[in-house]
Amino acid sequence: MDINEKKLMIVGPTEIENDILRLGSEKMMYNRTPEFSGFMVGINENLKYFFQTKNTVYTFVSSGTGAMEATVANTMSRGDKVIVIARGLWGLRWAEIASRYGLNVELVKLGWEEQIEPDKLKEILTDDMKGVFINANETTLGLLTNVQGIGRVVRDTSAIFVIDAISSIGADEFKTDEWGCDAVIASSQKALALPPGLSFICLSQKAKKMMERSDLPKYYFDIKEYEANIHRGQTPFTPATGLLYQLDLRLKKIRKEGIENVIKRHARLSGMLRAGIGALGIKFTGKNMSNGVTGMIAPKGINAREVVNMLREKYNLEIPPSPGDLEGKVFRMGVFGNLGQKDIMQAISSIERSLIQLGYPVAPGEGVKAVKQYISSEVRPDG
Amino acid sequence: MDINEKKLMIVGPTEIENDILRLGSEKMMYNRTPEFSGFMVGINENLKYFFQTKNTVYTFVSSGTGAMEATVANTMSRGDKVIVIARGLWGLRWAEIASRYGLNVELVKLGWEEQIEPDKLKEILTDDMKGVFINANETTLGLLTNVQGIGRVVRDTSAIFVIDAISSIGADEFKTDEWGCDAVIASSQKALALPPGLSFICLSQKAKKMMERSDLPKYYFDIKEYEANIHRGQTPFTPATGLLYQLDLRLKKIRKEGIENVIKRHARLSGMLRAGIGALGIKFTGKNMSNGVTGMIAPKGINAREVVNMLREKYNLEIPPSPGDLEGKVFRMGVFGNLGQKDIMQAISSIERSLIQLGYPVAPGEGVKAVKQYISSEVRPDG
Repeated sequence: MDINEKKLMIVGPTEIENDILRLGSEKMMYNRTPEFSGFMVGINENLKYFFQTKNTVYTFVSSGTGAMEATVANTMSRGDKVIVIARGLWGLRWAEIASRYGLNVELVKLGWEEQIEPDKLKEILTDDMKGVFINANETTLGLLTNVQGIGRVVRDTSAIFVIDAISSIGADEFKTDEWGCDAVIASSQKALALPPGLSFICLSQKAKKMMERSDLPKYYFDIKEYEANIHRGQTPFTPATGLLYQLDLRLKKIRKEGIENVIKRHARLSGMLRAGIGALGIKFTGKNMSNGVTGMIAPKGINAREVVNMLREKYNLEIPPSPGDLEGKVFRMGVFGNLGQKDIMQAISSIERSLIQLGYPVAPGEGVKAVKQYISSEVRPDG
Repeated sequence: MDINEKKLMIVGPTEIENDILRLGSEKMMYNRTPEFSGFMVGINENLKYFFQTKNTVYTFVSSGTGAMEATVANTMSRGDKVIVIARGLWGLRWAEIASRYGLNVELVKLGWEEQIEPDKLKEILTDDMKGVFINANETTLGLLTNVQGIGRVVRDTSAIFVIDAISSIGADEFKTDEWGCDAVIASSQKALALPPGLSFICLSQKAKKMMERSDLPKYYFDIKEYEANIHRGQTPFTPATGLLYQLDLRLKKIRKEGIENVIKRHARLSGMLRAGIGALGIKFTGKNMSNGVTGMIAPKGINAREVVNMLREKYNLEIPPSPGDLEGKVFRMGVFGNLGQKDIMQAISSIERSLIQLGYPVAPGEGVKAVKQYISSEVRPDG
């Protein structure tokens, strides 16, 4: 297999811009030097911009799950009561991690598009609750949680508001401080469009205060160690230097483009994609869709896995199936990373052909036509 | 600062071969595919060769410290009695991690070159001990531990033998299975000469059995999750794909070169280096030196940090100082990575000049002459 032929429309890793990729071949620098410190201070500042926060953002060498665990292990204590609100497999990960650490988890399992009512949340959010855990985007479905709404309720309590924003931040609007988010988790291979290997936590003052009383064991993910070094641009453990070169440039580019424009770019690509998919009569997983991930329900008689396999084998397009209960029923497409309207058009055309071959009746060209209509109907910046 | 001018003779990250570096710019592949699985199965097999083991080697996205913590969290239980044998800052890390997890640590603090006597170890290694933790090379000193000797004692007990081999394996002889090592930790940026970001654990059957009873919390580093996926070439969490491309090629090159030859290469470079350093009258930290790291004691009246600073600022040579108690007294040089005899000669020449400028009387050229003598006296493969 030549991986260069495959277009990635999964939910990470993504297509990566060439200038960012090239930095992956740079010589390593020694990290215990003033030069590295200066470089890292710059990254830390630009991470704040990406998170829309005045608070500190910590960088770990790990996948996003590592940063999720770090949040639990650093802010919570054994036996703490927490609420986990989940609509799917990824939301449930918070409950799994919290249970491993001996927390007392109240799980609120919602339907795909269901949001918790503020009154209902107030009711179950008793004074002894230490945290409310959610994910911003249930990645298996591509559907958003009402982060802002939940934040409004949690901010007036003694609980911290913890958000796995891995597949949302940078693609969807996400205002860490303004929305009252106390711990926000991200990783490098989604909207940041970098190779996997880095994860991030942004912590509010309220969350940092919770760290003081935490009695859970941690070492590699001990945020106090990161905190003790971050002011001087250092890390307690060896950083992934090469990935940091790439992160540095990516953050600078995001700053230049403007985070609002980065979000709009994701919204536009997904808009095109959905225009095409909709024209083929394919149903989406729900209405409250994330900008980064589109979830689609396989048409009757077609296994979602067949669509995924045909696209990759015949059309060099990688899209992800959905795991767990959704296996066979849902397929997804991501627009993270270095993709443009040509890629979307190409993808829709490939989906049309795949569906026809799988026996689903679509008029060839209908999807692509709808994408073109979407593009031509866009309000231009000058109009 | 132009990092390309700086020659790295630290103890990681290292100078990296160009063909390995280039792979850092390759397009990402989707990891939930048969192609990735096949690729990962190959890596896992070659890791066994590198570790000289028939057992499984697990790969994490983290620094080496993460893999150390993973070993404790997966094989131990709260209150377990363990012995940590330490001769310096890095050896003490095992005690720190074990204490964080509520283990009952018996710390055997040895002198720089001291080795524990088998009889003494037998005496303190009571039946209720669950583990003996050491490091193969105390990196702050560059001095080796008698892994083989300790292994001989521990193998007949119910304790597991755990070795941080991060700065040793691949540079020094290290026979995981033959020496009775139950858990061996490595990372990507030492003798593997890759960018930092990956760590590894090799576990014996005895260690895997200990995992069954472990009650310590873990999630990201839960080895059972890795074990459940490794047979099919998968990882429980998103892998650092780009680093794996580089690991794959590096392991293939090591296999081709032969692990014995890789070790000899490190021994030869350190041999040259020490011939030169010795000729300048500089004392080493001890006799039982590792092949990868040379520890040197700063001459009277000279602060080790001055040597380090002058080399980096005037001669574009990065060497590491030693931390903690050794600060100002010890400086080190690493020969990991893509270095050759020209680099050693250049380094010795730079050290000569630096020492002269710092007021230490050496005859210019003596060091370089000694390196040349070392090279010319080597027994050639054909002679």
